[in-house]
Amino acid sequence: MKPLITLATTLLMSLSTAAAPGQPTAAPRVEPPNWWVGMRDTSLQLMIHGAGIADAQPALAPYPGVTLKASHRTTSPNYLFVDLDVAPSAQPGELTLTVAGRTLRYPLLARAPGSAERQGFGPKDAIYLVVPDRFAQAGQFGRAGMLEGTDRADPGGRHGGDLAGMRKHLGYIAGLGFTQVWPTPLVENNSAKYSYHGYAATDFYKIDPRFGSNDDFGAFTAEARAQGVGVIQDIVLNHIGAGHWWMADLPAPDWVNAWPAYTETHHARMTLQDPYASANDRKRFTDGWFVPGMPDLNQRRPELATYLTQMTLWWIERYGLSGIRTDTWSYSDRDFLTRWSARVMQEYPRLNIVGEEWSPHPAVVSYWQRGKKNHDGYVSHAPSMMDFPMQSNLLAALLEDDGAHTGLTKLYEGLAHDFVYPDPANLVLFDGNHDTPRIHSLLRHDVGLTKIALAYLATTRRIPQLFYGSELLMRSPTERDDGRVRSDMPGGWAGDRVNAFTGAGLTPEQRDMLEWTRRLFTWRKGATVIHDGALMQFAPLEGVYVFFRHDAARTVMVVLNKNAKPVELALGRFAERVSAGQKARDVLTGATATLGSSVKVPARGALILEIER
Amino acid sequence: MKPLITLATTLLMSLSTAAAPGQPTAAPRVEPPNWWVGMRDTSLQLMIHGAGIADAQPALAPYPGVTLKASHRTTSPNYLFVDLDVAPSAQPGELTLTVAGRTLRYPLLARAPGSAERQGFGPKDAIYLVVPDRFAQAGQFGRAGMLEGTDRADPGGRHGGDLAGMRKHLGYIAGLGFTQVWPTPLVENNSAKYSYHGYAATDFYKIDPRFGSNDDFGAFTAEARAQGVGVIQDIVLNHIGAGHWWMADLPAPDWVNAWPAYTETHHARMTLQDPYASANDRKRFTDGWFVPGMPDLNQRRPELATYLTQMTLWWIERYGLSGIRTDTWSYSDRDFLTRWSARVMQEYPRLNIVGEEWSPHPAVVSYWQRGKKNHDGYVSHAPSMMDFPMQSNLLAALLEDDGAHTGLTKLYEGLAHDFVYPDPANLVLFDGNHDTPRIHSLLRHDVGLTKIALAYLATTRRIPQLFYGSELLMRSPTERDDGRVRSDMPGGWAGDRVNAFTGAGLTPEQRDMLEWTRRLFTWRKGATVIHDGALMQFAPLEGVYVFFRHDAARTVMVVLNKNAKPVELALGRFAERVSAGQKARDVLTGATATLGSSVKVPARGALILEIER
Repeated sequence: MKPLITLATTLLMSLSTAAAPGQPTAAPRVEPPNWWVGMRDTSLQLMIHGAGIADAQPALAPYPGVTLKASHRTTSPNYLFVDLDVAPSAQPGELTLTVAGRTLRYPLLARAPGSAERQGFGPKDAIYLVVPDRFAQAGQFGRAGMLEGTDRADPGGRHGGDLAGMRKHLGYIAGLGFTQVWPTPLVENNSAKYSYHGYAATDFYKIDPRFGSNDDFGAFTAEARAQGVGVIQDIVLNHIGAGHWWMADLPAPDWVNAWPAYTETHHARMTLQDPYASANDRKRFTDGWFVPGMPDLNQRRPELATYLTQMTLWWIERYGLSGIRTDTWSYSDRDFLTRWSARVMQEYPRLNIVGEEWSPHPAVVSYWQRGKKNHDGYVSHAPSMMDFPMQSNLLAALLEDDGAHTGLTKLYEGLAHDFVYPDPANLVLFDGNHDTPRIHSLLRHDVGLTKIALAYLATTRRIPQLFYGSELLMRSPTERDDGRVRSDMPGGWAGDRVNAFTGAGLTPEQRDMLEWTRRLFTWRKGATVIHDGALMQFAPLEGVYVFFRHDAARTVMVVLNKNAKPVELALGRFAERVSAGQKARDVLTGATATLGSSVKVPARGALILEIER
Repeated sequence: MKPLITLATTLLMSLSTAAAPGQPTAAPRVEPPNWWVGMRDTSLQLMIHGAGIADAQPALAPYPGVTLKASHRTTSPNYLFVDLDVAPSAQPGELTLTVAGRTLRYPLLARAPGSAERQGFGPKDAIYLVVPDRFAQAGQFGRAGMLEGTDRADPGGRHGGDLAGMRKHLGYIAGLGFTQVWPTPLVENNSAKYSYHGYAATDFYKIDPRFGSNDDFGAFTAEARAQGVGVIQDIVLNHIGAGHWWMADLPAPDWVNAWPAYTETHHARMTLQDPYASANDRKRFTDGWFVPGMPDLNQRRPELATYLTQMTLWWIERYGLSGIRTDTWSYSDRDFLTRWSARVMQEYPRLNIVGEEWSPHPAVVSYWQRGKKNHDGYVSHAPSMMDFPMQSNLLAALLEDDGAHTGLTKLYEGLAHDFVYPDPANLVLFDGNHDTPRIHSLLRHDVGLTKIALAYLATTRRIPQLFYGSELLMRSPTERDDGRVRSDMPGGWAGDRVNAFTGAGLTPEQRDMLEWTRRLFTWRKGATVIHDGALMQFAPLEGVYVFFRHDAARTVMVVLNKNAKPVELALGRFAERVSAGQKARDVLTGATATLGSSVKVPARGALILEIER
């Protein structure tokens, strides 16, 4: 599962330009900044941006296996799109392109061995979600040219977390048992304020200098791999930041979705599945903007579609990523998503892509998963989706009174809905994310309920994702309040009184939760029956919900008890999977015992038993 | 849509028995009490119940086209099952069977012309649901042998409504614009108390004498047809009443689902779709009892399956029914339901069957509808299901604040889920039923909201069903309280001070609601675009939800406004379906106008406009 990257960092980002005599010195921008030989799709389209170059006739110096197929302009006089073909026979090296009298040297790199066949994140993994600005600060990076400085006192400001901080604490993440890290976007977001979240790119190919350099990102991903942690890149295809360099010189008027008057999306995502939707509503959903500061990209524009696709491949290939998290999935053009996901999976057939479709409806989320036979024939190639329906069920299960369709029944019926998905085990189920209130606060600061939630994440038939700090019972307002949800990881900053990484200053409750989380996810890492075993669940009764993971060799029994008092659970009902006389090991305490006709389940908590055959 | 029944009533229920010399005079019971020639499936199995007859060798006097194929017994010494074949060539007449020295004469009737081809209820219809005991009393029926008498003061007692009362007020039902009536079960429920609801049959072939006789039922159905109202029979396949005559002499120990100790269903209906269900849970759901007073039938027992199927066909054929409402659908054996629904639809290909699956999940309800391609290969032949998910959405739409997935968005996203159903237009959507609190009370006695709900029922892409009394704003507790939900229709009893049928004593609010309902459903009756037109909906915005019904000839615009004040709704967003300059007629007021760039929508109410082309 660790993709190998052996490229010399020095080869990268090494686009060299040499000005011809008499030419202005401003070098054209060429994106992607490099490419590779040996990609399955041999096409490559360069976007070249330079003053007045749109009508230039580019020339390619002879290079075995590489052909200049065509070039064209759009409306702007300053963009030239050059189509190359890089045949399988082409060797690594440097292309020499002449454009408007200027010589551009373009690196063609060798792919890392096994790059195409890399195994992406999957059910064997557990993902740790980090907001980089809020996790830890360890570097001393220049902020030159950046519009917003650091202000830790402002919940919506930049707090100064960086790649060096994340790299420094990879051991903490790996030590908790996590095998994947998903940082929210790291690319440049150069806006005057509220820039820290990263979802308003101003440069798709550049790490925000306040986080570090692209090389720092490379060092982070390499160190992560060395510690057995894959890196999932958070990519935004739907929109950019208003400060993106395109906005000063749009390649074409329809590069972003333009409206007679500023129009926001109405977030009516079901326009895409609704057999009764109006065309007007569909357009408003897809083409409407999120906010004035996030121009909405028109991926129907072919050069933009190609740009976004190549940009995605570039990060995967360059940094040996184990997967992509795609922001605001359904807001992008639907047909573009088909082609984009097809191309990514064509190049990396075992990679994973997880899309964000914030809907409580399995019928909606499943629509986007690879393999779904849709009513309208729509095809997606994304292997995973964020499981918003189940996250919503998990909260309801623990907050609502149990009823015919409320409380624990929602968890039970939610999982029973798995028949709607082509591959439910490959969904990512999360306790929360950067957009949701902290789970511990939603669960009314009840540690028992929080443990039940995490135990469920770690044992059900899903890829679990934990939001940084949940292991410390981090709190937030229960209404949406992004800045406070994404509060600083204690210990991430020099001088922090409380330090999660050393344990200093943690309350006993936090210390217990941290250790408990470590035991849980460390155990999960080796528990193959959780990764790919079958599941059998029993209808919740009297505040207790029981399910099993099992395969030919192993059985794990999970009991979630919502009651405020311990329960003596008779085993007779579960005879299909467990019986008296079997030996069992309590995963969370290590205690072993021979089972009688019942087991004692702690008050408001989870019991996870490995049952010996 | 009016099935013709031309049989002489005198022919029916005419099982005649003649005791052979020396035999006891108690006549065996034979069910079904008659059959017909010309059924598509030529098989017929008689259940004969008589003391000690199980091992008798029955003989059939020669009858052209009818063959005695076999007979067998079960464990009880008192049941004999006789298999006949009634070939297409057989003519109406009377079979002569000799069983244990006794001669039984068994009527074979002619089917009514067009019986097999009758058109069942469908989207062109509106259904009025009546609880017969609570609707109106007009007969003087003997209660001989009935364990429970009449006590109008007891909410859970019998109030004395009857078939004559329902027949008397068919004009009221038809006059409101309804074209179908669904009475809750009318068959004998002879239990000591709480017998009025009808869901605990003690005789499957006999109308409860407190409602009248089978002939009275025949008169009711004939009169209904004459007034353009089809009759939907409410049939319970899952359970019987503890006082059913079988219980004193079970044909076999497994005729009802037996448990070592009394076991109730846990109502975990998703055990049937859940890919992770335990066999134990599935069994408990299907075979568990509702209550001790309702023995749970085991339809895996072949003779019982045949009995229930023939019983269903008997009522349809005998009384010219337009459809079946099947109680507690999923609680019956799943494979039996496949065969039962297949056989009913085989005999009456255009009939309708609506099943009760009380789930808020479209994925669950759709599982049971004819044409659904299920994940597990399960096949159902029921053309319709009760739309519990949408009824739940309708209430939430009007009670919750609007949000991303709450309030009106639930109605919008609920309808968008129609892609999950093979035939959404054929679902029955209801304002409430005998098991739900009164809609007007759930909607906080807000007449505007109640009108919105009924307007939605009448115009969306469904078969609407109204619970008797909703047109009078009838009230109930908002927690479940069956006896009070099913309160007496005012005017149904001699001496009632308030009378819905004459209008006497109604409040101005009730009078207005009654007239409004009449206008709405009378209009719907002729509005073919509502019956089979297309639908286009727009995402709700600012408390206003808009959809259109349209076909080549007509357009209807429906605007539901939850706001407490009138709204001036700009039409620009709806340009796909309507534009300024078109003429429109307000269906509920009759007012006509030429549309400008906006329409005025009344505060908290519904606007239904017929748009002229």
